[in-house]
Amino acid sequence: MSAERLIYLPLGGAGEIGMNTYVYGWGKRGEERLIVVDLGVTFPDMDSSPGVDLIMADIEWLAERRDRIEAVFITHAHEDHVGAAGLLWEKLRVPIHARNFTAAIAQMKLDERGAPSSALNVVGKWPEMVEAGPFRVGFVPISHSIPESSGLVIDTPAGRIVHSADFKIDRTPVVGEVFDSDLWAEVARPGVRALMCDSTNVFSAHEGRSEASLAEPLAQLLKEAPGMVVATTFASNVARLLTLAQAARGAGRKVVLLGRAMRRMVETATATGLLHDFPAVVSPEDAQELPRRELLILSTGSQGERRAASAQLAQGSYLGISLKEGDTFLFSSRIIPGNERPVLKVMNQLSEKGLDVIYDEIGTYHVSGHANRPDLEAFHDLIGAPLVIPMHGEHRHLREHARVAEARGRKAMVVTNGMMLDLTGDRPKVVEYVDAGRTYLDGTVLVGAMDGVVRDRIRMALNGHVTVSLIIDENDQPLGDVWCEVEGLPGTGRSGDPLCEVLEADLTKHVARLGRRALRDEDKLAKDLSRMVRQIAQNEIGKKPEVRVVVSHLD
Amino acid sequence: MSAERLIYLPLGGAGEIGMNTYVYGWGKRGEERLIVVDLGVTFPDMDSSPGVDLIMADIEWLAERRDRIEAVFITHAHEDHVGAAGLLWEKLRVPIHARNFTAAIAQMKLDERGAPSSALNVVGKWPEMVEAGPFRVGFVPISHSIPESSGLVIDTPAGRIVHSADFKIDRTPVVGEVFDSDLWAEVARPGVRALMCDSTNVFSAHEGRSEASLAEPLAQLLKEAPGMVVATTFASNVARLLTLAQAARGAGRKVVLLGRAMRRMVETATATGLLHDFPAVVSPEDAQELPRRELLILSTGSQGERRAASAQLAQGSYLGISLKEGDTFLFSSRIIPGNERPVLKVMNQLSEKGLDVIYDEIGTYHVSGHANRPDLEAFHDLIGAPLVIPMHGEHRHLREHARVAEARGRKAMVVTNGMMLDLTGDRPKVVEYVDAGRTYLDGTVLVGAMDGVVRDRIRMALNGHVTVSLIIDENDQPLGDVWCEVEGLPGTGRSGDPLCEVLEADLTKHVARLGRRALRDEDKLAKDLSRMVRQIAQNEIGKKPEVRVVVSHLD
Repeated sequence: MSAERLIYLPLGGAGEIGMNTYVYGWGKRGEERLIVVDLGVTFPDMDSSPGVDLIMADIEWLAERRDRIEAVFITHAHEDHVGAAGLLWEKLRVPIHARNFTAAIAQMKLDERGAPSSALNVVGKWPEMVEAGPFRVGFVPISHSIPESSGLVIDTPAGRIVHSADFKIDRTPVVGEVFDSDLWAEVARPGVRALMCDSTNVFSAHEGRSEASLAEPLAQLLKEAPGMVVATTFASNVARLLTLAQAARGAGRKVVLLGRAMRRMVETATATGLLHDFPAVVSPEDAQELPRRELLILSTGSQGERRAASAQLAQGSYLGISLKEGDTFLFSSRIIPGNERPVLKVMNQLSEKGLDVIYDEIGTYHVSGHANRPDLEAFHDLIGAPLVIPMHGEHRHLREHARVAEARGRKAMVVTNGMMLDLTGDRPKVVEYVDAGRTYLDGTVLVGAMDGVVRDRIRMALNGHVTVSLIIDENDQPLGDVWCEVEGLPGTGRSGDPLCEVLEADLTKHVARLGRRALRDEDKLAKDLSRMVRQIAQNEIGKKPEVRVVVSHLD
Repeated sequence: MSAERLIYLPLGGAGEIGMNTYVYGWGKRGEERLIVVDLGVTFPDMDSSPGVDLIMADIEWLAERRDRIEAVFITHAHEDHVGAAGLLWEKLRVPIHARNFTAAIAQMKLDERGAPSSALNVVGKWPEMVEAGPFRVGFVPISHSIPESSGLVIDTPAGRIVHSADFKIDRTPVVGEVFDSDLWAEVARPGVRALMCDSTNVFSAHEGRSEASLAEPLAQLLKEAPGMVVATTFASNVARLLTLAQAARGAGRKVVLLGRAMRRMVETATATGLLHDFPAVVSPEDAQELPRRELLILSTGSQGERRAASAQLAQGSYLGISLKEGDTFLFSSRIIPGNERPVLKVMNQLSEKGLDVIYDEIGTYHVSGHANRPDLEAFHDLIGAPLVIPMHGEHRHLREHARVAEARGRKAMVVTNGMMLDLTGDRPKVVEYVDAGRTYLDGTVLVGAMDGVVRDRIRMALNGHVTVSLIIDENDQPLGDVWCEVEGLPGTGRSGDPLCEVLEADLTKHVARLGRRALRDEDKLAKDLSRMVRQIAQNEIGKKPEVRVVVSHLD
């Protein structure tokens, strides 16, 4: 028994905000029985992942130990927690446990990838618990920005772990369960060995505000706005959608849902009985019959996503709805760091159309779904665990969160993706470093972030591309001239002649000078010509392009 | 005479923050004599301009009217006002007027592009004025974040124009001239027809703070920091460099300048007599002999620029200086919207090294160089022009600035790049729309943003690239198989076979079936094969790559 240990291994989410994937294990070294908490995605950007569709944790370590995995637990239905459930199912093929609403969303993810519904198991809230090998896991309701969010109680032979998942302290969350201090006190009473805790808002020094605080300012705004109002927020923020919709009703406006995710969420929340009193919505078609003054459009794309409803509206129209001077566009959301470029682009397009764009940095029309520093401190105290492990944050968040905990006399450790922590005994220690990278969904294929596929695309984007083709005849002699094809490069450079012609002339001359042996050695020849192309291009246009040489040997 | 008119035409800066390029003209329609204010650059990003080195205004309209241009005036030495002076000189070849410090910086830009120094003319400050055709132009000192910033007084036959350039209201700017209300009142006394005004900070509702307010908090921070302190800010912010350096001296720290721009600016400011009492600096080499506690590094790269000193330090070391746990890294700067990704990357790298990273959103260690809303209102009043034309801003800034002016009873117009405004008479009106695009410096070549060069690179980054090559013999028969080369795409897809082989097999089969005529028509053949490649790839990997087909015809 003494050899058995309790391990914690983040594979995603501990080093970024997104793609949450955490592993817990109990057993003899190398034989631990494992459970996985969340299978999330994060989103690509042009800087690091052009053309990629989705990003998730590299779970090879788990896949190789599939027989040791008892189950997956999904804490809530946000993409960065459930988004990869369908994509990664094939690699795991173990039961997935979630509460009702979360399961309904997870179901869609599984269906999209042809995974069996039987994989999904709907769990009731705490005190109900799920047996998973040496673990017993309970879903404890906690307030966040999507219904049925839960923190997990994970009972292990080495004691109780609390995995906060995403949360805020909100006692009037409009939709979903309130933050219940008594409930969490009850959870903590037997003693908690370690608290794994959300770090997203650790840099926000003020106490968080409740979702309910938005009702009045939003009602006011919708009453006073002269024309049509478009409001964008995360589709998954069902509470916000309800607050907006009710404010609309109060202001005599009909609600239109624009964007697939928006409709999906409202339907799912209604079907699972979480959304009461949501005003009847009108279709985009019918909306066009109504006076603009009587409309509120709820639209996807609060982060400026190129294909989402908001971006399309900003560019012209979407499903027949178009914007006019005098309309108001409300960002009932916050720009996620890194999305500023696309969001500002949308804002400026709206400004050009003469709209009043409302994005309020101080959050009159938006509150965060994550606990700020004072709320984190309150939660630490409530759980009373001697050890706090920050999760769900970039390194700077984890580090700051650890300090906050230490400043109040708790032990804390910064544990990032791939660090395996042994939690047994009094001194938690890092016992292993696991390869924890990223997996890209690229089109329909899963590729490793380090496979070089995306690296090659970035190089072409930065340097342009030249294709060189050359035919060698049966006697190992060049047949005709060397051909070049240029893509993504200036047509002419220093010499004033077309770059393509300059390249062809120089390369043809060079090849003519080569002896048989040189022409027979295709690899060396290709390397040669590539180097020449780079040199010539550097000299002509000041860039060294990516080069692909095609030597066709006749024989 | 009645046919003569006064025109204003922004070619850059009125629709973005950056690449400031403004044109004024007086004369008969189509014969106006022209002056240009500023020739600035803006910076590329992966989203819209991968691989581009610099971005400037498309000045074809000016180049075609070169014989009508009297002169260029540079208001101050920031890159977004002077950065393109050397690059665009060849297209204009007219005198460039600037004050001493600005001219010294402009000189470097001209030298870099082999433009004659004779082009440059150093001008004293107001009341000195430069005659330029029908215009008389004076440089009126105004406070900003670089020495010798000037607003322009432009006297025209139709009256006086004030071109604010970049400014803030700072009466204790540490370096450079104070904002002098009396001086501006004197400028305004004869009456000002129109004020062209900086819009950058129109969304900041509070009064701006003075550069001098930073001295104490910075001194405090440098006294208390336990280890080495690295501070990054814009190299051109000479006042900040001085404040930091003096705080360092007070804290018993020696100053090290890291980054070419940083050294250049301090040298130039010293050489032009603007920088007194700047402590002696030590070289990076000598710094390594000193205790960390006695060092302040002033480092370039406050915006996370990949090659700048800050990014290199964050990655490991730079010129032998490396960072350690216990050191402090201060961002005495603000993240320019759009640069969050690179800056946060640097911050997280520093956090991983165990540094204390100080970036204070509320600006304890940084003040902006631009006038906030209340300061803009005060400046409007001081100048007293009936018409305010917002400039230096994205569309949302210009629009908001126009409202601010209108709210206080002035006329205002949103005039964006390419809109020619006729300022003669009582009713200013847009009389022409000029093509005003962007020109890219790509390597050593200037290309138009719309030339498709960068578009092709973006496509390769998003979709990957396939090269298809095929040889047709003398009898119009395919010789051997079709070859494919794949770049930036997953190696295998749905079928499990290498994508390359799947493509080659299908294309070879297809080509074998084609008749002579089809094989002789190379364009159609290439289109055919491209379409097939896209279809096959879509089916195999869910992506439609960029395709280049090379058909070699033997004859």
